[in-house]
Amino acid sequence: MNFRLVIGRMGLLFALLGAIMLGTAGLFGAVELLGVRRDPDLTGIGALGAAGLLGLLLGGAGWLSCRGAPSYLGRREALLLVAASWLMGAALSATPYFLWAHLDRARAGHPFRWFIDCYFEAMSGLTTTGATVLSDIEAMPNALLLWRALTHWLGGLGIVVLFVAVLPGLGVGGKRLFNVEAPGPSPEGLQPHIRETARWLWYIYLALTVAQVALLWGLTPLDLFDSVCHTFGTMATGGFSTRNASTGAYAATPMVDLIIVVFMVLAGMNFNWFYKVCKGRLAEVWRDPELRAYLAMLTVGSALVSYAVWRSADPIVMTTGEEVASGLGASIRQGVFTTVSIQTTTGFCTSDFDRWPFLAHGVLVLLMLVGGCSGSTGGGVKVIRAWAAFKILLAEIEHVFRPQVVRPLRLGRTVMDSDLKLGTLAFIIGMAVLFVGGSGAVMLLEQMNPASECNYTTAATAAIACLCTIGPGLDLVGAVQNYGWLSGSSKAVLSVLMVLGRLEVYAIIVLLSPRFWRDR
Amino acid sequence: MNFRLVIGRMGLLFALLGAIMLGTAGLFGAVELLGVRRDPDLTGIGALGAAGLLGLLLGGAGWLSCRGAPSYLGRREALLLVAASWLMGAALSATPYFLWAHLDRARAGHPFRWFIDCYFEAMSGLTTTGATVLSDIEAMPNALLLWRALTHWLGGLGIVVLFVAVLPGLGVGGKRLFNVEAPGPSPEGLQPHIRETARWLWYIYLALTVAQVALLWGLTPLDLFDSVCHTFGTMATGGFSTRNASTGAYAATPMVDLIIVVFMVLAGMNFNWFYKVCKGRLAEVWRDPELRAYLAMLTVGSALVSYAVWRSADPIVMTTGEEVASGLGASIRQGVFTTVSIQTTTGFCTSDFDRWPFLAHGVLVLLMLVGGCSGSTGGGVKVIRAWAAFKILLAEIEHVFRPQVVRPLRLGRTVMDSDLKLGTLAFIIGMAVLFVGGSGAVMLLEQMNPASECNYTTAATAAIACLCTIGPGLDLVGAVQNYGWLSGSSKAVLSVLMVLGRLEVYAIIVLLSPRFWRDR
Repeated sequence: MNFRLVIGRMGLLFALLGAIMLGTAGLFGAVELLGVRRDPDLTGIGALGAAGLLGLLLGGAGWLSCRGAPSYLGRREALLLVAASWLMGAALSATPYFLWAHLDRARAGHPFRWFIDCYFEAMSGLTTTGATVLSDIEAMPNALLLWRALTHWLGGLGIVVLFVAVLPGLGVGGKRLFNVEAPGPSPEGLQPHIRETARWLWYIYLALTVAQVALLWGLTPLDLFDSVCHTFGTMATGGFSTRNASTGAYAATPMVDLIIVVFMVLAGMNFNWFYKVCKGRLAEVWRDPELRAYLAMLTVGSALVSYAVWRSADPIVMTTGEEVASGLGASIRQGVFTTVSIQTTTGFCTSDFDRWPFLAHGVLVLLMLVGGCSGSTGGGVKVIRAWAAFKILLAEIEHVFRPQVVRPLRLGRTVMDSDLKLGTLAFIIGMAVLFVGGSGAVMLLEQMNPASECNYTTAATAAIACLCTIGPGLDLVGAVQNYGWLSGSSKAVLSVLMVLGRLEVYAIIVLLSPRFWRDR
Repeated sequence: MNFRLVIGRMGLLFALLGAIMLGTAGLFGAVELLGVRRDPDLTGIGALGAAGLLGLLLGGAGWLSCRGAPSYLGRREALLLVAASWLMGAALSATPYFLWAHLDRARAGHPFRWFIDCYFEAMSGLTTTGATVLSDIEAMPNALLLWRALTHWLGGLGIVVLFVAVLPGLGVGGKRLFNVEAPGPSPEGLQPHIRETARWLWYIYLALTVAQVALLWGLTPLDLFDSVCHTFGTMATGGFSTRNASTGAYAATPMVDLIIVVFMVLAGMNFNWFYKVCKGRLAEVWRDPELRAYLAMLTVGSALVSYAVWRSADPIVMTTGEEVASGLGASIRQGVFTTVSIQTTTGFCTSDFDRWPFLAHGVLVLLMLVGGCSGSTGGGVKVIRAWAAFKILLAEIEHVFRPQVVRPLRLGRTVMDSDLKLGTLAFIIGMAVLFVGGSGAVMLLEQMNPASECNYTTAATAAIACLCTIGPGLDLVGAVQNYGWLSGSSKAVLSVLMVLGRLEVYAIIVLLSPRFWRDR
């Protein structure tokens, strides 16, 4: 294992994160001087600046001390680098929250007084989960709110894709890294020019971000700050909002919902498709079974959820606490927004779907498990894997009564070989094992605290919501709840689930294998 | 499809079931005349006799009308025959309950006044599940109690194994039939002389049954009737008792628990092992990874559950309603009995484990999913599959960082090829899909009835308890509850889950494939 190379690269990452923090702090300092949008709490800028300096120092030290390392980046080094980027990147990203809590001694019971809460929030950001420990988000200084949204955006297409695109010098290792990082199996491949494609992806991501900010700022009452923060949450399929009521705070303006829904749908798509569309290969994209399955699920899911909301006589309770009659229009608006937000694993909330009937819950939980498309910023097992597993199961059924018939299994134009089939099913079972283990661990840890009211639904949906990087679950971690009340050890478990789900399990699990650390 | 052959064979099955019913009714008639153990309700004998006659008539008609059918039993015919045996066999087996309810007009609100309740009870018997709709089991006539236990015993090693062993004339089809019926993948195979082996299995089953009856009758205060009924429930890993408090009614006699635990452990074992032990191949059995995994799970599971019960300060509530201090001895006794009863998918209860802490629930639900060994009367996904899946997942993890290393995956001495691996994982995912679909369907159906108090825990554990043929679940279908309060449509769904789980999914699912019914 080439540890020095890994440490050096981690140094670069830390320095980069530090520079971004410093830049953000500087920006807010300047805004403060100009007085455009005054921050309620200047300690945020200080905390962010200090954390940025720390990142630069640590990163610089790491990079300098390992400068002469051999540049061979093997598969194991790549995996370690990816895992470390998220596990340690979250620690650095959590520092501003922690410093803020301790600079701001005035407030008792500060939500960030324990580091694990900060780590949870930062990991939730970088993994684009959107689960928060905060009950009063609006009390946070603007500088930290932007940093919080920024962790989504940076995590979004992956710190490491950025790494591959921006920082040269990975050579052949870059491809391996990409294989680990690129979310989901991409049957049609990004092989030829990894670095160029990564740059393309980056441009597309940036262009979509700019477009959404412009639309939100131009067409709705949101100011630039809120437009940027919500766009970061949307494009990364994250879900951190700047408002306590999440996007429900803008319920008076349907245009906000509409713009966010459209961009959530886009962010949940395979970014290869945008690249292909730019190259004029629209027909090819349209033939992709993953696109069709994705759109079909969103449509059917939205219809079922809207129907369930409409059919139940209860009024819709918004995240602001307001009640709205569940007429057809309101049901469709809430049903579609929630379904898209959940399946794309974003987790923005406009209404308290925890009060909806079981049909809505069932559909939402199933869509949580499926998640976005491969190559998107969405989480879950990915549409393509769910679709592939469905086809494999059908083929297995036919195999029982016609063992002699061997039909090649196709996904689009790709024929699945037995390795790919096995890998797909193994991944799904692995996620199921993590879900069961994770919710069991949360239940056990919560039962150690007699005051905790955690129940099976809460523990199970918290585990799903973290593993599939959604954010809100049901019951005590529902749409208008948060994760702050959980014990520190439960938050640690959930943080691990987030990074496991985000890095598609293997990149973290391999670290537990003794063989991984053995040379030969 | 050779329908006439299938109908002819079904005729033989119906005639056989009818003859057994008539025999049982005759036996009880004779007992009644002798006055050994007087039946509280003579209508039971009448109902059983009438149902037996009906079975003989229908069966005879079916067999006679299809006597000249070509004797070719293909794979599809075999599958259809297996599916029909359980689906229609349950209908015939339900008839005595239904007739009893309608002969016995005196009682209002009779638990068997709807046929779906009778069907549920009969299917629960034949699939060796042990879920009941009865709240007052002791009010049932003895003749029907014995028939109820007998459905377990007949279902136990499989009506169709009996069919293969007892009724000659299946030729090469017999082997195919056996492949479907023999529970679980049997890596070391029963190939050479199917019919002879089936006979051996039958003798072993009978010998174990006789042994348990003798022990219960000889060493405990149970009379012959209760000894026989509980033995049928044990050997089939069924769980129907003759007492409202299940085996908890005998809590005063630890010997009852001990005998039942030992025989539950035996019944959850692969019956091939007994055959091998008879042939003196003890060492070979001991080397079987499935045996070791099974015993390890039972031991660790019992230890964890006992620990959880002991650690919680609450007293143990017996199924009789009595409370017992959760001292070390009592905790071990209840923990071991419950763990063995649940993992072997028997479902006898001595204490109300629904009140136990989460650690116990978690372990029990995991063991429910695993179930017994392949080739046993137990349900679940089977120990060997769980073990195989675990090894496949480990291999997949190594594959990520060492793609070039190809290590053959062994189960005992068998090397798993990629077809077997894929089939194993597909089966587990199939069970998971059925679990999710089944619990969702139950939840939906129950929500249509505003009076139903069904919740997520109840629906989920009801689905697991039926799919894995256990019987009791948690909460409203817990140890001291029953399934009677569910709606008829929920019971229909759960009946389908039972037969799906019992026949290892495929034998039923193939019937839904249009290709199955097409010739060519």
